[in-house]
Amino acid sequence: MVIHGEDHETRLPRPPEPLGRYRMAARSGDLLFLSGMLPICDGMPEFRGRLGAELDIEAGRSAARLAARNGLAVARRHLTTLDRVESVVRLTVHLATTPEFEAHAQVADAASEVFHDALGPRGGHSRLALGAASLPGGMPVELEVILAVKSQ
Amino acid sequence: MVIHGEDHETRLPRPPEPLGRYRMAARSGDLLFLSGMLPICDGMPEFRGRLGAELDIEAGRSAARLAARNGLAVARRHLTTLDRVESVVRLTVHLATTPEFEAHAQVADAASEVFHDALGPRGGHSRLALGAASLPGGMPVELEVILAVKSQ
Amino acid sequence: MVIHGEDHETRLPRPPEPLGRYRMAARSGDLLFLSGMLPICDGMPEFRGRLGAELDIEAGRSAARLAARNGLAVARRHLTTLDRVESVVRLTVHLATTPEFEAHAQVADAASEVFHDALGPRGGHSRLALGAASLPGGMPVELEVILAVKSQ
Repeated sequence: MVIHGEDHETRLPRPPEPLGRYRMAARSGDLLFLSGMLPICDGMPEFRGRLGAELDIEAGRSAARLAARNGLAVARRHLTTLDRVESVVRLTVHLATTPEFEAHAQVADAASEVFHDALGPRGGHSRLALGAASLPGGMPVELEVILAVKSQ
Repeated sequence: MVIHGEDHETRLPRPPEPLGRYRMAARSGDLLFLSGMLPICDGMPEFRGRLGAELDIEAGRSAARLAARNGLAVARRHLTTLDRVESVVRLTVHLATTPEFEAHAQVADAASEVFHDALGPRGGHSRLALGAASLPGGMPVELEVILAVKSQ
Repeated sequence: MVIHGEDHETRLPRPPEPLGRYRMAARSGDLLFLSGMLPICDGMPEFRGRLGAELDIEAGRSAARLAARNGLAVARRHLTTLDRVESVVRLTVHLATTPEFEAHAQVADAASEVFHDALGPRGGHSRLALGAASLPGGMPVELEVILAVKSQ
Protein backbone atom coordinates (compact mmCIF):
# COMPACT_ATOMS: atom_id res chain seq x y z
CA MET A 1 0.00 0.00 0.00
CA VAL A 2 2.75 2.39 0.94
CA ILE A 3 4.72 1.22 -2.09
CA HIS A 4 1.72 1.79 -4.34
CA GLY A 5 1.27 5.28 -2.87
CA GLU A 6 4.89 6.11 -3.52
CA ASP A 7 4.62 4.80 -7.05
CA HIS A 8 1.67 7.03 -7.69
CA GLU A 9 3.36 10.07 -6.28
CA THR A 10 6.49 9.51 -8.34
CA ARG A 11 4.43 9.81 -11.50
CA LEU A 12 3.32 13.37 -10.73
CA PRO A 13 4.72 16.16 -12.91
CA ARG A 14 7.39 18.53 -11.69
CA PRO A 15 5.53 21.19 -9.65
CA PRO A 16 5.06 24.41 -11.67
CA GLU A 17 6.71 27.69 -10.71
CA PRO A 18 4.85 31.00 -10.11
CA LEU A 19 4.11 33.17 -13.17
CA GLY A 20 4.54 36.33 -11.07
CA ARG A 21 5.00 37.72 -7.58
CA TYR A 22 3.24 35.05 -5.56
CA ARG A 23 3.82 31.67 -3.92
CA MET A 24 2.51 28.36 -5.18
CA ALA A 25 0.81 27.67 -1.82
CA ALA A 26 0.01 29.47 1.41
CA ARG A 27 -1.02 27.89 4.65
CA SER A 28 -3.14 29.16 7.51
CA GLY A 29 -3.95 26.81 10.37
CA ASP A 30 -5.03 23.50 8.88
CA LEU A 31 -5.88 24.94 5.46
CA LEU A 32 -3.47 24.92 2.52
CA PHE A 33 -4.46 27.31 -0.29
CA LEU A 34 -2.90 26.42 -3.65
CA SER A 35 -2.33 29.09 -6.27
CA GLY A 36 -4.15 28.83 -9.59
CA MET A 37 -3.23 25.49 -11.18
CA LEU A 38 -2.85 25.63 -14.95
CA PRO A 39 -2.30 22.99 -17.65
CA ILE A 40 1.42 23.73 -17.76
CA CYS A 41 4.25 21.27 -18.29
CA ASP A 42 7.89 22.32 -17.74
CA GLY A 43 6.83 25.95 -17.67
CA MET A 44 5.03 25.84 -21.03
CA PRO A 45 1.24 25.79 -21.64
CA GLU A 46 0.20 22.34 -22.88
CA PHE A 47 -3.24 23.57 -23.94
CA ARG A 48 -4.46 26.85 -25.35
CA GLY A 49 -7.90 28.05 -26.48
CA ARG A 50 -11.46 28.12 -25.24
CA LEU A 51 -14.02 25.40 -24.63
CA GLY A 52 -16.70 25.67 -27.28
CA ALA A 53 -14.30 27.20 -29.80
CA GLU A 54 -10.77 25.83 -30.36
CA LEU A 55 -11.10 23.04 -27.79
CA ASP A 56 -13.66 20.27 -27.41
CA ILE A 57 -14.70 18.58 -24.18
CA GLU A 58 -12.08 15.83 -24.39
CA ALA A 59 -9.27 18.37 -24.77
CA GLY A 60 -10.72 20.33 -21.87
CA ARG A 61 -10.75 17.19 -19.74
CA SER A 62 -7.11 16.48 -20.56
CA ALA A 63 -6.19 20.03 -19.60
CA ALA A 64 -8.16 19.72 -16.36
CA ARG A 65 -6.35 16.49 -15.51
CA LEU A 66 -2.93 18.07 -16.05
CA ALA A 67 -3.86 21.10 -13.94
CA ALA A 68 -5.09 18.80 -11.15
CA ARG A 69 -1.92 16.73 -11.26
CA ASN A 70 0.09 19.94 -11.02
CA GLY A 71 -1.96 20.72 -7.93
CA LEU A 72 -1.06 17.40 -6.35
CA ALA A 73 2.59 18.02 -7.21
CA VAL A 74 2.54 21.42 -5.51
CA ALA A 75 0.78 19.98 -2.46
CA ARG A 76 3.30 17.15 -2.22
CA ARG A 77 6.24 19.55 -2.45
CA HIS A 78 4.70 21.72 0.26
CA LEU A 79 3.73 18.87 2.60
CA THR A 80 6.56 16.42 1.70
CA THR A 81 3.95 13.70 1.21
CA LEU A 82 0.31 13.56 0.14
CA ASP A 83 -0.32 11.37 3.20
CA ARG A 84 -0.60 14.63 5.13
CA VAL A 85 -3.65 15.71 3.13
CA GLU A 86 -6.64 15.29 5.41
CA SER A 87 -9.18 16.20 2.71
CA VAL A 88 -9.81 18.34 -0.35
CA VAL A 89 -12.12 21.04 0.97
CA ARG A 90 -12.75 23.08 -2.14
CA LEU A 91 -12.15 22.68 -5.86
CA THR A 92 -13.18 25.49 -8.19
CA VAL A 93 -12.76 24.73 -11.88
CA HIS A 94 -12.45 27.87 -13.99
CA LEU A 95 -12.85 27.19 -17.72
CA ALA A 96 -12.24 29.66 -20.54
CA THR A 97 -15.37 29.27 -22.65
CA THR A 98 -17.55 30.80 -25.31
CA PRO A 99 -20.79 32.33 -23.99
CA GLU A 100 -22.71 29.31 -25.35
CA PHE A 101 -20.74 26.59 -23.54
CA GLU A 102 -22.76 24.56 -21.02
CA ALA A 103 -20.82 21.34 -20.30
CA HIS A 104 -18.74 22.68 -17.41
CA ALA A 105 -19.52 19.72 -15.17
CA GLN A 106 -18.23 17.18 -17.69
CA VAL A 107 -14.88 18.96 -17.96
CA ALA A 108 -14.65 19.63 -14.23
CA ASP A 109 -15.23 15.94 -13.46
CA ALA A 110 -11.85 15.14 -15.02
CA ALA A 111 -10.15 17.28 -12.37
CA SER A 112 -12.31 15.82 -9.61
CA GLU A 113 -11.36 12.30 -10.68
CA VAL A 114 -7.65 13.04 -10.32
CA PHE A 115 -8.19 13.93 -6.66
CA HIS A 116 -10.38 10.87 -6.09
CA ASP A 117 -7.84 8.57 -7.75
CA ALA A 118 -4.87 9.98 -5.86
CA LEU A 119 -6.44 10.38 -2.43
CA GLY A 120 -9.35 7.94 -2.28
CA PRO A 121 -12.12 9.04 0.09
CA ARG A 122 -9.93 11.97 1.22
CA GLY A 123 -10.21 13.27 -2.35
CA GLY A 124 -13.94 14.04 -2.10
CA HIS A 125 -14.67 17.76 -2.22
CA SER A 126 -17.12 20.61 -2.64
CA ARG A 127 -16.91 22.13 -6.13
CA LEU A 128 -17.76 25.05 -8.32
CA ALA A 129 -17.42 25.11 -12.12
CA LEU A 130 -17.37 28.51 -13.81
CA GLY A 131 -16.88 29.92 -17.30
CA ALA A 132 -14.22 32.64 -17.62
CA ALA A 133 -13.85 35.15 -20.45
CA SER A 134 -10.11 34.43 -20.51
CA LEU A 135 -7.39 32.79 -18.43
CA PRO A 136 -3.65 33.50 -18.07
CA GLY A 137 -1.58 32.72 -21.16
CA GLY A 138 -4.67 31.80 -23.17
CA MET A 139 -5.02 28.52 -21.29
CA PRO A 140 -8.43 26.79 -20.99
CA VAL A 141 -8.40 25.69 -17.33
CA GLU A 142 -7.38 27.16 -13.99
CA LEU A 143 -8.05 25.36 -10.71
CA GLU A 144 -8.59 26.85 -7.27
CA VAL A 145 -7.78 24.27 -4.59
CA ILE A 146 -8.04 24.40 -0.80
CA LEU A 147 -6.77 21.38 1.12
CA ALA A 148 -7.17 20.48 4.78
CA VAL A 149 -3.89 19.30 6.27
CA LYS A 150 -3.49 16.82 9.12
CA SER A 151 -2.49 18.67 12.25
CA GLN A 152 0.47 16.58 13.42
CA MET B 1 -39.75 31.44 17.96
CA VAL B 2 -38.66 27.87 17.47
CA ILE B 3 -41.96 27.17 15.75
CA HIS B 4 -41.46 30.13 13.45
CA GLY B 5 -37.93 28.93 12.66
CA GLU B 6 -39.21 25.50 11.80
CA ASP B 7 -41.92 26.97 9.60
CA HIS B 8 -39.34 28.93 7.71
CA GLU B 9 -37.09 25.95 7.27
CA THR B 10 -39.90 23.76 6.04
CA ARG B 11 -40.45 26.14 3.16
CA LEU B 12 -36.97 25.59 1.74
CA PRO B 13 -36.66 23.64 -1.54
CA ARG B 14 -35.45 20.07 -1.62
CA PRO B 15 -31.61 20.31 -1.55
CA PRO B 16 -30.12 19.84 -5.04
CA GLU B 17 -27.93 16.87 -5.93
CA PRO B 18 -24.39 17.11 -7.39
CA LEU B 19 -24.09 17.47 -11.20
CA GLY B 20 -20.87 15.44 -11.17
CA ARG B 21 -18.20 13.83 -9.03
CA TYR B 22 -18.33 16.09 -6.00
CA ARG B 23 -20.19 16.61 -2.73
CA MET B 24 -22.70 19.34 -2.04
CA ALA B 25 -20.72 20.51 1.00
CA ALA B 26 -17.35 19.91 2.64
CA ARG B 27 -16.36 20.84 6.14
CA SER B 28 -13.01 21.71 7.66
CA GLY B 29 -12.89 22.83 11.27
CA ASP B 30 -15.62 25.40 11.79
CA LEU B 31 -15.98 26.24 8.08
CA LEU B 32 -18.58 24.63 5.83
CA PHE B 33 -17.90 25.10 2.11
CA LEU B 34 -20.99 24.68 -0.07
CA SER B 35 -20.67 23.60 -3.69
CA GLY B 36 -21.82 25.96 -6.42
CA MET B 37 -25.49 26.75 -5.82
CA LEU B 38 -27.54 27.07 -9.00
CA PRO B 39 -31.14 28.13 -9.72
CA ILE B 40 -32.25 24.53 -9.97
CA CYS B 41 -35.54 23.05 -8.86
CA ASP B 42 -36.07 19.27 -8.70
CA GLY B 43 -32.91 18.77 -10.74
CA MET B 44 -33.98 21.07 -13.60
CA PRO B 45 -32.71 24.60 -14.36
CA GLU B 46 -35.44 27.13 -13.53
CA PHE B 47 -33.60 29.93 -15.34
CA ARG B 48 -31.40 29.99 -18.42
CA GLY B 49 -29.63 32.81 -20.26
CA ARG B 50 -27.39 35.77 -19.53
CA LEU B 51 -27.98 39.03 -17.69
CA GLY B 52 -27.99 41.83 -20.24
CA ALA B 53 -29.25 39.53 -23.00
CA GLU B 54 -32.06 36.99 -22.46
CA LEU B 55 -32.62 37.93 -18.79
CA ASP B 56 -33.34 41.25 -17.11
CA ILE B 57 -32.42 42.26 -13.58
CA GLU B 58 -35.68 41.02 -12.04
CA ALA B 59 -35.22 37.57 -13.57
CA GLY B 60 -31.64 37.53 -12.35
CA ARG B 61 -32.81 38.42 -8.85
CA SER B 62 -35.34 35.59 -8.89
CA ALA B 63 -32.63 33.17 -9.99
CA ALA B 64 -30.30 34.45 -7.26
CA ARG B 65 -33.00 33.95 -4.63
CA LEU B 66 -33.61 30.35 -5.72
CA ALA B 67 -29.88 29.58 -5.71
CA ALA B 68 -29.56 31.08 -2.22
CA ARG B 69 -32.51 29.07 -0.94
CA ASN B 70 -30.89 25.95 -2.38
CA GLY B 71 -27.81 26.88 -0.39
CA LEU B 72 -29.80 27.11 2.82
CA ALA B 73 -31.37 23.74 2.03
CA VAL B 74 -27.98 22.12 1.55
CA ALA B 75 -26.67 23.71 4.75
CA ARG B 76 -29.70 22.51 6.69
CA ARG B 77 -29.34 18.97 5.37
CA HIS B 78 -25.65 18.98 6.31
CA LEU B 79 -26.10 20.53 9.77
CA THR B 80 -29.57 19.13 10.59
CA THR B 81 -30.70 22.65 11.50
CA LEU B 82 -29.79 26.17 10.44
CA ASP B 83 -29.51 27.04 14.14
CA ARG B 84 -26.00 25.64 13.92
CA VAL B 85 -24.92 28.32 11.44
CA GLU B 86 -22.73 30.76 13.35
CA SER B 87 -22.41 33.19 10.43
CA VAL B 88 -22.16 33.47 6.67
CA VAL B 89 -18.51 34.24 6.10
CA ARG B 90 -18.39 34.59 2.34
CA LEU B 91 -20.88 34.88 -0.49
CA THR B 92 -19.61 35.14 -4.05
CA VAL B 93 -22.29 35.75 -6.66
CA HIS B 94 -21.24 34.63 -10.12
CA LEU B 95 -23.53 35.96 -12.86
CA ALA B 96 -23.47 34.97 -16.53
CA THR B 97 -23.49 38.33 -18.28
CA THR B 98 -22.83 40.16 -21.50
CA PRO B 99 -19.62 42.23 -21.49
CA GLU B 100 -21.70 45.42 -21.07
CA PHE B 101 -23.60 44.37 -17.92
CA GLU B 102 -22.90 46.53 -14.86
CA ALA B 103 -25.70 45.93 -12.34
CA HIS B 104 -24.11 42.98 -10.53
CA ALA B 105 -24.76 44.45 -7.08
CA GLN B 106 -28.49 44.76 -7.68
CA VAL B 107 -28.81 41.10 -8.64
CA ALA B 108 -26.45 39.92 -5.92
CA ASP B 109 -28.48 41.76 -3.27
CA ALA B 110 -31.35 39.33 -3.88
CA ALA B 111 -29.13 36.45 -2.74
CA SER B 112 -27.81 38.46 0.20
CA GLU B 113 -31.36 39.20 1.33
CA VAL B 114 -32.22 35.50 1.48
CA PHE B 115 -29.43 34.95 3.97
CA HIS B 116 -30.40 38.01 6.00
CA ASP B 117 -34.06 36.96 6.06
CA ALA B 118 -33.33 33.37 7.08
CA LEU B 119 -30.55 33.98 9.58
CA GLY B 120 -31.00 37.53 10.86
CA PRO B 121 -27.75 39.15 12.02
CA ARG B 122 -25.97 35.80 11.50
CA GLY B 123 -26.76 36.21 7.78
CA GLY B 124 -24.46 39.22 7.29
CA HIS B 125 -21.47 38.41 5.08
CA SER B 126 -18.56 39.58 2.98
CA ARG B 127 -19.36 39.44 -0.72
CA LEU B 128 -18.03 39.47 -4.24
CA ALA B 129 -20.12 39.84 -7.40
CA LEU B 130 -18.53 38.76 -10.68
CA GLY B 131 -19.56 38.42 -14.31
CA ALA B 132 -18.88 35.01 -15.91
CA ALA B 133 -18.71 34.22 -19.62
CA SER B 134 -20.87 31.15 -19.00
CA LEU B 135 -22.16 28.96 -16.18
CA PRO B 136 -23.08 25.26 -16.01
CA GLY B 137 -26.16 24.29 -18.00
CA GLY B 138 -26.55 27.81 -19.38
CA MET B 139 -27.80 29.07 -16.01
CA PRO B 140 -27.45 32.77 -15.06
CA VAL B 141 -26.34 32.48 -11.40
CA GLU B 142 -23.95 30.36 -9.37
CA LEU B 143 -23.25 31.05 -5.69
CA GLU B 144 -20.13 30.31 -3.72
CA VAL B 145 -20.95 30.10 -0.01
CA ILE B 146 -18.75 29.58 3.05
CA LEU B 147 -20.49 29.25 6.41
CA ALA B 148 -19.04 29.30 9.91
CA VAL B 149 -20.55 26.54 12.04
CA LYS B 150 -21.05 26.63 15.80
CA SER B 151 -18.48 24.41 17.44
CA GLN B 152 -20.69 22.38 19.77
CA MET C 1 9.91 51.42 12.55
CA VAL C 2 6.57 52.03 14.14
CA ILE C 3 6.65 55.59 12.89
CA HIS C 4 7.37 54.42 9.36
CA GLY C 5 4.52 51.91 9.56
CA GLU C 6 2.14 54.64 10.69
CA ASP C 7 3.29 56.91 7.90
CA HIS C 8 2.59 54.24 5.37
CA GLU C 9 -0.79 53.47 6.82
CA THR C 10 -1.80 57.11 6.83
CA ARG C 11 -1.34 57.22 3.08
CA LEU C 12 -4.02 54.60 2.45
CA PRO C 13 -7.30 55.72 0.84
CA ARG C 14 -10.48 56.05 2.83
CA PRO C 15 -11.94 52.50 3.01
CA PRO C 16 -14.76 52.00 0.49
CA GLU C 17 -18.35 51.39 1.55
CA PRO C 18 -20.48 48.39 0.45
CA LEU C 19 -22.32 48.66 -2.89
CA GLY C 20 -25.21 46.59 -1.51
CA ARG C 21 -26.41 44.43 1.36
CA TYR C 22 -23.10 43.08 2.61
CA ARG C 23 -20.20 43.95 4.90
CA MET C 24 -16.74 44.98 3.78
CA ALA C 25 -15.16 42.15 5.79
CA ALA C 26 -16.19 39.05 7.72
CA ARG C 27 -14.08 37.14 10.20
CA SER C 28 -14.10 33.51 11.19
CA GLY C 29 -11.43 32.27 13.58
CA ASP C 30 -8.10 33.61 12.39
CA LEU C 31 -9.28 34.30 8.83
CA LEU C 32 -10.52 37.69 7.67
CA PHE C 33 -12.43 37.60 4.37
CA LEU C 34 -12.55 40.95 2.58
CA SER C 35 -15.38 41.76 0.21
CA GLY C 36 -14.59 42.37 -3.46
CA MET C 37 -12.12 45.24 -3.66
CA LEU C 38 -12.66 47.55 -6.62
CA PRO C 39 -10.72 50.51 -8.07
CA ILE C 40 -13.00 52.99 -6.34
CA CYS C 41 -12.06 56.34 -4.83
CA ASP C 42 -14.53 58.27 -2.64
CA GLY C 43 -17.33 56.01 -3.84
CA MET C 44 -16.69 56.58 -7.55
CA PRO C 45 -15.05 54.19 -10.05
CA GLU C 46 -11.59 55.50 -10.96
CA PHE C 47 -11.28 53.08 -13.89
CA ARG C 48 -13.81 51.66 -16.32
CA GLY C 49 -13.46 49.30 -19.28
CA ARG C 50 -11.89 45.97 -20.15
CA LEU C 51 -8.30 44.85 -20.48
CA GLY C 52 -7.58 44.24 -24.14
CA ALA C 53 -10.17 46.79 -25.25
CA GLU C 54 -10.51 50.22 -23.61
CA LEU C 55 -7.67 49.66 -21.11
CA ASP C 56 -4.05 48.68 -21.62
CA ILE C 57 -1.85 46.80 -19.19
CA GLU C 58 -0.52 49.93 -17.46
CA ALA C 59 -4.05 51.18 -16.78
CA GLY C 60 -4.98 47.73 -15.49
CA ARG C 61 -2.00 47.78 -13.16
CA SER C 62 -3.00 51.18 -11.80
CA ALA C 63 -6.52 49.91 -11.18
CA ALA C 64 -5.15 46.80 -9.47
CA ARG C 65 -2.98 48.92 -7.21
CA LEU C 66 -5.90 51.09 -6.15
CA ALA C 67 -8.07 48.05 -5.45
CA ALA C 68 -5.29 46.51 -3.37
CA ARG C 69 -4.80 49.73 -1.39
CA ASN C 70 -8.54 49.78 -0.74
CA GLY C 71 -8.15 46.24 0.60
CA LEU C 72 -5.43 47.36 3.00
CA ALA C 73 -7.64 50.27 4.10
CA VAL C 74 -10.55 47.93 4.84
CA ALA C 75 -8.27 45.53 6.71
CA ARG C 76 -6.81 48.36 8.77
CA ARG C 77 -10.25 49.68 9.67
CA HIS C 78 -11.35 46.19 10.70
CA LEU C 79 -8.19 45.33 12.67
CA THR C 80 -7.29 48.86 13.89
CA THR C 81 -3.75 48.31 12.61
CA LEU C 82 -2.12 46.27 9.83
CA ASP C 83 0.33 45.00 12.44
CA ARG C 84 -2.33 42.43 13.29
CA VAL C 85 -2.13 40.87 9.81
CA GLU C 86 -0.29 37.58 10.20
CA SER C 87 -0.18 36.87 6.47
CA VAL C 88 -2.06 37.26 3.20
CA VAL C 89 -3.39 33.77 2.57
CA ARG C 90 -5.15 34.23 -0.74
CA LEU C 91 -5.34 36.89 -3.42
CA THR C 92 -7.57 36.31 -6.43
CA VAL C 93 -7.35 38.96 -9.12
CA HIS C 94 -10.45 39.12 -11.29
CA LEU C 95 -9.93 41.16 -14.46
CA ALA C 96 -12.61 42.19 -16.95
CA THR C 97 -11.06 41.21 -20.27
CA THR C 98 -11.69 40.50 -23.92
CA PRO C 99 -11.56 36.78 -24.83
CA GLU C 100 -8.10 37.31 -26.39
CA PHE C 101 -6.39 38.85 -23.34
CA GLU C 102 -3.50 36.78 -21.94
CA ALA C 103 -1.40 39.06 -19.71
CA HIS C 104 -3.31 38.47 -16.48
CA ALA C 105 -0.15 37.82 -14.47
CA GLN C 106 1.39 41.17 -15.40
CA VAL C 107 -1.66 43.07 -14.20
CA ALA C 108 -2.11 40.91 -11.10
CA ASP C 109 1.50 41.52 -10.08
CA ALA C 110 0.66 45.17 -9.44
CA ALA C 111 -1.82 44.10 -6.75
CA SER C 112 0.63 41.57 -5.33
CA GLU C 113 3.31 44.24 -5.06
CA VAL C 114 1.05 46.46 -2.94
CA PHE C 115 0.75 43.69 -0.36
CA HIS C 116 4.48 42.99 -0.46
CA ASP C 117 5.32 46.67 -0.08
CA ALA C 118 2.92 47.24 2.81
CA LEU C 119 3.48 44.02 4.74
CA GLY C 120 6.95 42.78 3.79
CA PRO C 121 7.33 39.01 4.09
CA ARG C 122 3.84 38.83 5.63
CA GLY C 123 2.51 40.08 2.28
CA GLY C 124 3.46 36.92 0.37
CA HIS C 125 0.42 34.97 -0.80
CA SER C 126 -1.09 32.28 -2.98
CA ARG C 127 -2.79 33.76 -6.03
CA LEU C 128 -5.21 33.21 -8.87
CA ALA C 129 -5.68 35.54 -11.84
CA LEU C 130 -8.89 35.16 -13.86
CA GLY C 131 -10.61 36.89 -16.75
CA ALA C 132 -14.23 37.94 -16.13
CA ALA C 133 -16.84 38.79 -18.75
CA SER C 134 -17.82 41.84 -16.70
CA LEU C 135 -17.38 43.33 -13.24
CA PRO C 136 -19.61 45.59 -11.11
CA GLY C 137 -20.02 49.12 -12.44
CA GLY C 138 -18.00 48.34 -15.56
CA MET C 139 -14.77 48.33 -13.56
CA PRO C 140 -11.72 46.37 -14.78
CA VAL C 141 -10.48 44.79 -11.52
CA GLU C 142 -12.00 43.11 -8.49
CA LEU C 143 -9.88 41.51 -5.79
CA GLU C 144 -10.72 38.62 -3.51
CA VAL C 145 -8.56 38.74 -0.38
CA ILE C 146 -8.29 36.42 2.61
CA LEU C 147 -6.00 37.47 5.44
CA ALA C 148 -4.76 35.50 8.43
CA VAL C 149 -5.00 37.53 11.61
CA LYS C 150 -2.74 37.24 14.64
CA SER C 151 -4.61 35.49 17.41
CA GLN C 152 -3.89 37.81 20.33
